[in-house]
Amino acid sequence: MRWDGLADEACSLARTVSVIGDRWTLLILRDCFLRVRRFEDFQARLGITRPLLARRLRDLVEDGVLARVAYQERPLRHEYRLTPAGRDLYPVVMAMVHWGDVHRAGRKGRPLLHRHLECGRDFDPVMTCSACGEALDPRHVHVHPGPGARNPRHLPARQRSLERNAK
Amino acid sequence: MRWDGLADEACSLARTVSVIGDRWTLLILRDCFLRVRRFEDFQARLGITRPLLARRLRDLVEDGVLARVAYQERPLRHEYRLTPAGRDLYPVVMAMVHWGDVHRAGRKGRPLLHRHLECGRDFDPVMTCSACGEALDPRHVHVHPGPGARNPRHLPARQRSLERNAK
Repeated sequence: MRWDGLADEACSLARTVSVIGDRWTLLILRDCFLRVRRFEDFQARLGITRPLLARRLRDLVEDGVLARVAYQERPLRHEYRLTPAGRDLYPVVMAMVHWGDVHRAGRKGRPLLHRHLECGRDFDPVMTCSACGEALDPRHVHVHPGPGARNPRHLPARQRSLERNAK
Repeated sequence: MRWDGLADEACSLARTVSVIGDRWTLLILRDCFLRVRRFEDFQARLGITRPLLARRLRDLVEDGVLARVAYQERPLRHEYRLTPAGRDLYPVVMAMVHWGDVHRAGRKGRPLLHRHLECGRDFDPVMTCSACGEALDPRHVHVHPGPGARNPRHLPARQRSLERNAK
């Protein structure tokens, strides 16, 4: 697997990584979900160089994750807003935040708490099964080829034998 | 923010990124959840160089994500297994896979399908609120400082004013 071909891999994780698998990009996205929208604000918060920030934002716009929207006419100024596809990255960001909260908060505790405005309570994100609603445990998930599967090597041998047994 | 200080940032996303925010690491983790455990198997599947793979695996062991376990005595051979902290990365990996499934599957469709063995059905992961069980929408989540908050700059101005209004 080569990085320049990552988006073409028949692997949804590799394809997502080709869009957001960059450290700065993940921190930019975190800020987007904190309602940061303007170039100067990203720059002040992240301490990233302006050319690097500009490139990352442009890539996110090209990839359909952010939209560049004018918010002022004279002088013309733009801000960056999450598109619906960008908002769909929320579980990725929240899952990463939650792992840090649980495994890296240290003695002081979590830097930020999340309140769910619909129920009014602080919460943890829980990943559940769309079919039965139960919390997911990776030991109870089996993977099998979908319509876009390309290469049987894509599934490791152990999964392939589970697959044969399931038939 | 500097990369060498990322693990020390008062931000749980930055701390998680310091552990897994590397493209190879994410692909190694994907394979771990597909039950790949042995050096040779990772190497054959990823096409990563041996020194780079060895370094990534060693880092994941040092970070408590993988455990290096002997599976054979003569000659001595080790394999890499997810620790409980490593298994807790499942929502991160699944959220990334799901985004790729939804937004990058192309005309052919998803490369892999996920079956939940407890209910027997193919599923999508859904991130829900631990307090009320509803699916999370980032527009209905408010962030406020936790016990480990260090710097008010950590919250952007818009969130800080929401916070004052909520008091």
